[in-house]
Amino acid sequence: MKIGIVGLGLMGGSFALDIKIPYPKSVIYGLDMSKENLNKALELGLIDHQLEYSKISEMDLVLVGVPVNYLLEILPKILDRVGQKTLVIDLGSTKEAICSLLENHSKRSNYLAAHPMAGTEFSGPSAAQKGLYIGKTNIICEFEKTDNKLGKFALEIFEGLKMKTIYMDSKSHDVHVAYVSHLSHVSSFMLGKTVIEKEKNEDNIFDLAGSGFESTVRLAKSNPKTWTPIFLQNKTNLAAAIEEYVSNLNLLKELILNENDDKLSEILNNTNRIKEILNNKTKNGK
Amino acid sequence: MKIGIVGLGLMGGSFALDIKIPYPKSVIYGLDMSKENLNKALELGLIDHQLEYSKISEMDLVLVGVPVNYLLEILPKILDRVGQKTLVIDLGSTKEAICSLLENHSKRSNYLAAHPMAGTEFSGPSAAQKGLYIGKTNIICEFEKTDNKLGKFALEIFEGLKMKTIYMDSKSHDVHVAYVSHLSHVSSFMLGKTVIEKEKNEDNIFDLAGSGFESTVRLAKSNPKTWTPIFLQNKTNLAAAIEEYVSNLNLLKELILNENDDKLSEILNNTNRIKEILNNKTKNGK
Repeated sequence: MKIGIVGLGLMGGSFALDIKIPYPKSVIYGLDMSKENLNKALELGLIDHQLEYSKISEMDLVLVGVPVNYLLEILPKILDRVGQKTLVIDLGSTKEAICSLLENHSKRSNYLAAHPMAGTEFSGPSAAQKGLYIGKTNIICEFEKTDNKLGKFALEIFEGLKMKTIYMDSKSHDVHVAYVSHLSHVSSFMLGKTVIEKEKNEDNIFDLAGSGFESTVRLAKSNPKTWTPIFLQNKTNLAAAIEEYVSNLNLLKELILNENDDKLSEILNNTNRIKEILNNKTKNGK
Repeated sequence: MKIGIVGLGLMGGSFALDIKIPYPKSVIYGLDMSKENLNKALELGLIDHQLEYSKISEMDLVLVGVPVNYLLEILPKILDRVGQKTLVIDLGSTKEAICSLLENHSKRSNYLAAHPMAGTEFSGPSAAQKGLYIGKTNIICEFEKTDNKLGKFALEIFEGLKMKTIYMDSKSHDVHVAYVSHLSHVSSFMLGKTVIEKEKNEDNIFDLAGSGFESTVRLAKSNPKTWTPIFLQNKTNLAAAIEEYVSNLNLLKELILNENDDKLSEILNNTNRIKEILNNKTKNGK
């Protein structure tokens, strides 16, 4: 199998490593707008060859893992060049804008809109890690718009990676990820900002970080080039999520200031349910 | 050395495990208002014997790791019973209220106010883990109010645990931890609440949790019996921290809605500095 990977960062690079498990004989061609990333990916053995634009039609699979603003520019151009049997999958964290843009593209049926729920706070080819995709959830949007055979091929790939596939329309996808993923990044970035502003002495931050700060602020290490366009593309849903979050923070602040012990305990106890919700996940091996 | 531990949860239980490294011959006596916790601690071998109130005066060290509301009740009573050479250390996450309460206690000099920056989201004796204290930062407040010899003894203990000791007055302590520790817990609890409220279908939460949510919401698993009184005792500082956090969230929301790409990138880039701040920590082995 010939696989082209466009965007050799964390997502594309890790895919290159993981796809060799079910498809050990696949040959991987890579492309990145940064020459440095391309060379690094070759040096690390993530990819076997550089991908030429003119060779896209020869690929069985083209996987596109670039920031979602570039996705809107590059995906139509890639689809313009695909062969009849080329499957194109993107990994973007927003799905409504790209699905809407490609709705009437003549090669729409060669495209599958996917969003693997996997990642770390690191970026670039050196951040690629084996097993990033294995066992994770993958969201597929508008599956019915992908050619039947190519859709089946896509499912085989995700099954090969032992991913759990769930299906959503692109609008619902963007609402759900606004809450469960994008809001986490916002909350973490703004926590980092608030603490950095207050603690002019950075020694204090790392001396005191032991007590929970480090994990809560982890996502604030994420790449702004990835996250700025995600926030902007999902602006309406994300703004609504931030408003609900702020309203909960204000409620908690009032309960604290009024020393409403009972109501405060009740809220924290109810929220503790997140433990069981996420434990089920572990139990079910999802 | 005879060590009494009052409160056999995560903090007290882990101390019982770690203190045996520098003081392998110490005999550990434990006390907990929950009979179940006491039995569990005996069963797990965290403690050697039950601690009787009447025996407190025979202890070399009494370590108190109970929720900060109980701390205000129990610490004066423990100090009433200490012998001349008994050192009493508490582990509370707030320091102003307890230091102020004990200011004029006749045994004030037997007491050392400490706050080890260590913990996990789990609680109870079964959550005790070896190495929890090793290499962490420990904040000592109002060191000058502790008897010289007992203060020296305390420093030996913390050095034995390879902790890094820093010194603060109790008011400054409560301000700093409001930002670096307590706000992290608030942000995580309210993130959990917001997501649970939105996602009526809990399957969605665990299916989508892969993308950063799980670590950001980790602290929302923490024990409300520990955290409700901490929030209340640090209410003024914490309310100010929440206000600054909310103001940053609102700023971000406006930039997103106005599609202010440049300013948004600038803020995320500036906040990325948290990576270097926390990396320095690792480099310095702190």
